[in-house]
Order: sequence, then structure tokens, then C-alpha cells
Amino acid sequence: MSHISFSALGRRAQAPQITRLMSMALETPGLLSLAAGFTDTHTLPSVAVRAAADALDATGLPPEHLQYGTNAGRPGLRAALAKRLAAEDNAGADVAALTASSFITNGSQQALYIAMQVLCEPGDIVLVDRPSYFVYLELLSGLGVQARSIPVDADGRVDGPGLRAVLDKLHASGERSKLKAVYFVSYFSNPSGRSLSAAEKTLIAETLTAADCVVPVIEDAAYRELYFDQPHAAPSVLALPAWDAFAKLYLTTFTKPFASGLKVGGGVCTEPRLFNAIQFVKGHQDFGSANFNQAVCEQALTNGDFDRHLSTLRPAYAKKMNTLHDALTEGGLADLGWSWVVPAGGLYLWLRGPESVDTGFDGAFCRAALDAGVLYVPGALCFGDDVPVNRVRLSYGVLSGDPLREAGRRFVQAARGV
Amino acid sequence: MSHISFSALGRRAQAPQITRLMSMALETPGLLSLAAGFTDTHTLPSVAVRAAADALDATGLPPEHLQYGTNAGRPGLRAALAKRLAAEDNAGADVAALTASSFITNGSQQALYIAMQVLCEPGDIVLVDRPSYFVYLELLSGLGVQARSIPVDADGRVDGPGLRAVLDKLHASGERSKLKAVYFVSYFSNPSGRSLSAAEKTLIAETLTAADCVVPVIEDAAYRELYFDQPHAAPSVLALPAWDAFAKLYLTTFTKPFASGLKVGGGVCTEPRLFNAIQFVKGHQDFGSANFNQAVCEQALTNGDFDRHLSTLRPAYAKKMNTLHDALTEGGLADLGWSWVVPAGGLYLWLRGPESVDTGFDGAFCRAALDAGVLYVPGALCFGDDVPVNRVRLSYGVLSGDPLREAGRRFVQAARGV
Repeated sequence: MSHISFSALGRRAQAPQITRLMSMALETPGLLSLAAGFTDTHTLPSVAVRAAADALDATGLPPEHLQYGTNAGRPGLRAALAKRLAAEDNAGADVAALTASSFITNGSQQALYIAMQVLCEPGDIVLVDRPSYFVYLELLSGLGVQARSIPVDADGRVDGPGLRAVLDKLHASGERSKLKAVYFVSYFSNPSGRSLSAAEKTLIAETLTAADCVVPVIEDAAYRELYFDQPHAAPSVLALPAWDAFAKLYLTTFTKPFASGLKVGGGVCTEPRLFNAIQFVKGHQDFGSANFNQAVCEQALTNGDFDRHLSTLRPAYAKKMNTLHDALTEGGLADLGWSWVVPAGGLYLWLRGPESVDTGFDGAFCRAALDAGVLYVPGALCFGDDVPVNRVRLSYGVLSGDPLREAGRRFVQAARGV
Repeated sequence: MSHISFSALGRRAQAPQITRLMSMALETPGLLSLAAGFTDTHTLPSVAVRAAADALDATGLPPEHLQYGTNAGRPGLRAALAKRLAAEDNAGADVAALTASSFITNGSQQALYIAMQVLCEPGDIVLVDRPSYFVYLELLSGLGVQARSIPVDADGRVDGPGLRAVLDKLHASGERSKLKAVYFVSYFSNPSGRSLSAAEKTLIAETLTAADCVVPVIEDAAYRELYFDQPHAAPSVLALPAWDAFAKLYLTTFTKPFASGLKVGGGVCTEPRLFNAIQFVKGHQDFGSANFNQAVCEQALTNGDFDRHLSTLRPAYAKKMNTLHDALTEGGLADLGWSWVVPAGGLYLWLRGPESVDTGFDGAFCRAALDAGVLYVPGALCFGDDVPVNRVRLSYGVLSGDPLREAGRRFVQAARGV
């Protein structure tokens, strides 16, 4: 019998919701999962990774890529990240300045976590998109931070007056001082597949500014590179004048567009005090991400393998999205009262079921899906507040071809059964 | 001008002390550094890493090693860690149980950080060895946690009555409830090079128990594999009966004995509630360490490359230690009033200077060392409290041969000059 006293954070720590999904999967042999947000294993760049390791070793110099690196990350990788971002934002950006404010983390998730640590106390509030990335919402819960949604209209577009009302309410309730950041996944979002237009991003900034709520903004661009046919036209918050007065943290990752198993992410932070605070806390957590992984990403970015890989990945994911979309359509899901928007990139279909359907873990629908042999993410996990129960996230990241088609067919079967 | 409000943790975040050292190094061309705790770059296992990557890819299966892994870590690596630990402790351990309570992190540093997050509130107290690992001490400061030293005698051995007095004082001052953990680096310590004997570890446990201070123990065994001739005989706290009633967190790493640039560490936690809390928080921070790196370590552990690498590393570090030791001895450092114990493993020489010497950043000695062209870590960084100013940590991890000899010579020159 051991004596142990946990901190408040330790007491708040709970098993992730996804644990329930994984247990269900283990208990149900033959299940096809549209739940996991994994990337496609078959297309992972094993040849490029080995080529990068070989090239790093072919210099004849001691293998510094297997030595500890620096806390902020490998200079060449930070420069490559900044250069790529400048090109994407097409904004005549100062690449040297972007490089200096860039950093590398263990996936972009670590940057999200540390940013919340340095900005928020338990009880504080963060504005989040609607729907939002559910692991981020769980991270907030773990830190005791409240999420409030940025209101959207029936088509999922940012509702400016609705947002203003939320902010006014914060002022009225005396909670304005608790608002510490605003967060959104702006390109081919997890879970919605939607991208924010430049007008929507500007609307958010202008509404925050007008309501005296100029707080740090965190733009999560994890899926920006995963477009099917062409990039989403909107520049990032770094290049939109409405955000000029805000501290900006822009996050990107090499996990989704390259190799999830290397776990390299990073970003740019335009506010030196925030940049430094994040770096100092990272110094305590690991004093630098794995140097080898950074060196491999740097190689692939500079030798062209990264772009070559993306050029095969994009049509592969487009095809998978279409396979799932077709299976749902041909099965007749729309006739059952379900709707969704065909995304232009990313890894997810985001479905809205009939109002009568509850897709939660404990409902009849979830039971029916498990009986049919298919797993999904209940949409309720993806909302900071005012949670609808009839949404579903399906991922076509892992499955392909016949199994993906069959998973879609099973999902329709579940929808038909209840 | 951006508006930004930091959390208490964000406000506490400070540049690591080592930043000063790095700035000094940059400002002093030709400097030889005995400061960095890096491993030897020349002996890093680039061939083994590439062989592992090739083998992982030669299965003909999709490259799951480049896919996301699980939060707790790769099952095969956890099993290998447990098996190795059971063999080291020579205790007829239940390997299956050890495997189930094992986990993988981004180096062992991440495990240290999360353990402190889930156990400690700002203002809480942790008992630490004397001297202790300075990045851990900085981590504690970042979380607002106080360090109190476990007293030692003139030879650095644990002082049982002294420890009892510290604990009694905690009771008397009403601070006992703030004591949340005890931490020590028990094999070829950073910075002291010392190892704790089984009797010392047992003395700590018995003293804590007698003083009603049964709190979680964290044993940092980062250097356990880095012995020169033979393993240090003491088993870990997992195998010492005096620790039976304690929640135990044993940490190990593959960075020091294999490849620091892969940043794979981990450990074993015998208390399920603590294990789970650590896992749940890791889920928020990164939901799993880089799978590729884990797969490479797993390969090297199972195909023998890990042990083959260690068998070259051990004599290499022994030789480097002797090179530095000889340079200090032959230069006459002992005659100048300096003393040190020759370590049996690890990466460090721990020096005690004359009482009149202050080795701090702002002192004349540090200036003399920089003028002589050599950098060291001021020992004052390595104490939780009651800080002596005449200690120095020298690392022979990075330099070899003539440069290492020259660095030692310069250090003696600095000692002679002041």
C-alpha cells in the first residue's frame, strides 16, 4: 500500500476518450476502424527516410545527427520550415525573421500543450473552432481550462455577430480576464474537413479587436499541405493584417504530410516573450526534440523527397476520400437523413445525422455500428461546449480500397438499422 | 504591441543556466568545452541505426514503424527494457509484470517532468541527492517546486541521521505535507560520478519510513549502463525490500548508452495510479514518442547491436576519463588544493576546489578559465539548497585525445592563475 498525493493536475488526468474506442476495437474482432486519425501506412516514406539516413552518414564526418541537438531545433530545418511557410503565404515574408521565430517540437501537439501551460491557469478560457480538434479539447481539460466555441452558421461558417455576443457575455460576466487565447484548425480541419476563408479569419480578428479581446491566436495548420488538388487560398494569420496586433502562434507538422512515426512538428511564434516562455518550458520537458528525426526531415525537404512524397500522397488521399464518399452515397446514407460536405483535403469526412440520432458511446447507434463491424469517432468529443450529439467523424487515413468501401457500407448499414 | 497574459508557470519560465555557458562559448573562439553533457559523437551508432532501418523495411510489410505508435510505447521495446532491467537487478523479477508497468518517453527527461507535474503543486518539496542533476533542479524551479538535499558526509555518502533531521524539521515546520517525492541519480551520477550503494539506498528508505515520509521515489538510472569495467553492484529500488511500501518510478534511457539523437527513454512505474496519471498527461503532450526511434532501439536491443555498441563505448569513455584525469593530475591540480574521486563509469569528473575558490559565472575563476580557453559547469548549479561555490563538473563526453588533454591542461592553468 503506497502513500501518494497527486497534484490537481494529476487528479484531473483522465484516460482519453479514444481509450474507449480502442477497447471496443479490441473486444470486437473483424472490426473496421474509421476512427483512428492515423495516416496511410502503405504510403509512408520508408525509402526516403532510409535515403536520408544514408545521405547523413555519407558525409564522412562524425554522425552529429545522432547527437543531441538544440532546444529550439535544427537550424536547417527551421530555415526550411520558414521558407516553405513564406512560399505558402505568398506574402513577401521576411524568411530570416520567420526562421528566427520558428521552432521544432515533438509533433505540433507538444507546442499546443506548452502554449497552454504558459498562457493558462485552471479555470481560464480559450475560444475554439466549432467543431474542434478533440485531443486539443482533452489537453485543455487536463489543464483545467475551459473551451468556448466560436459560433458558426448552419454551413459551418464563422458567425461574427454570434462571436461578438460570446465576447460581450464574457465582459458582462466578469470572465473577460480569463480569456487567454483563441485556437482553430484552419486548413482541411480535423474533424470537419473545412478550411477557414481569409474573410472568416479576418472576421474573427476584427470581432476580437472590437470587443477588446486581443489575446494570443493559435493557428493549427496540421493539414495545410494535405490538399487534394490545390492549396487552400487563404493565407495564415501571420499574413493577414487584421491579426497584426495579436501575438501569433502558427503550428505546422511533418507528421501528416511526411512520416507520422518521426513525430516532428513545429511552428512560428511572432511574440518574443511567448516564444521564449515556450522554449524555456520545452527545455524542462526534453531540452530538444530528436535530432535524427529533424535531420531526416531537413534532408527530405531539401533534396525534394518531401515534395515528391506529397505529390503521391495527395491523389492517394483524394482517392480514399472518394472511395468512402462513394460508399456512403451509393449505400443511400443521404436518404437516411445524413449529410456531409465533400472536403478538398485532409483525412476526414464529417457527418451530420438526423436530429434523432445520438452517436455517443452509450447510444443505440454506436451499438449498431459495432454490431455492423465499424468504428467511428462520436462527434460530441469535438465540441468545446453546447454539444450536438448527432455528428460523426470518419477517417479514411488508414483503410483503402475494398476494406474502406466495406467500412462505409457497414456504416450505412448501422444508420439504416436504427 | 500585443496583449499577453502569462500563467504563473509562464512567468516562472526562465532561460536555462546553461544558456550563459553557451553564450560564453560563442563569444570565445577556440574555447574547449568540458561543460556540455553530450555523448561522444565519433562513437554514435550510425551503422547500427541504418541497419535497423533497413531491417525494419526488409519485412515486405507496410512500414508501420513510420506510423504513429501507442502512448505507452512500442510493446517490443517495453518488453526489451523490462527484460534488461530484470537481468540488471538479478532479482528473479517478474518480467511480464515489469513490462506491463514500463513505458517509453522522449528521453527520461519527459518522464521526470510529467512525474513532477502529476505529483507537485508550486511550493511543494522534493528531496534530491547532493549534488543532483541540474536540469532536474531547473525543471523543479520551472514548476515552482522546492528542492531539499539529502545530507551527505565528507565522502559524499548518505548521512542517515542528517536526513532524519531534515525530515524531522519538515514535521516541525508543518511542511511534511508538502513533501511529494524523493529523487536521486544512483549510478555514476551526473554530476558526481558516484553510485549509491545498496546500503545507502536502504538507509534512505528506512529513514523516510521511520519519519513517516513514505512518498514516491524516483530513481534516475541514466548512466547505469555506462560503467567502465563492471556494473555497479547495487540493485535498483525496485529490487530492494526497504522500498517495498513506496510508489517507485525507475527511469532509464537509450540516449546515453546508444544514441542521444534518437531521444528514447523510459522507465517502470510500480504504482498503477501514478503510471496512469503519467500516461494520461503524456497523451496530452504528444500521445506517444516517435515510433521509428523506438523501433530502431528495439531492433538494436534484440539483434545485439546495442550490446556490441556498449562494449565499444565503455572502454572509449574509460579512456577519455583517464585522459582527462591524467591531464589534471600531471598538471598538478591536486597540489593546488583540488580533489576528485576517479569514477567507475559515467561522463563526469566532479572536482572540489579550495574553499577560497568561487567557480560561479561571475567569479574570477570562471574568467580565468575563459581566458585559458576552457569551459566547465559551475558546481553551484547542482545543489538544491545550501550551495557550495567551490565545485566544478567536467565532462569528458565530447572531447577526446589531444583536445581533451589540452582542455584539462587549460583547466589547471586557470586554477593556477587565481
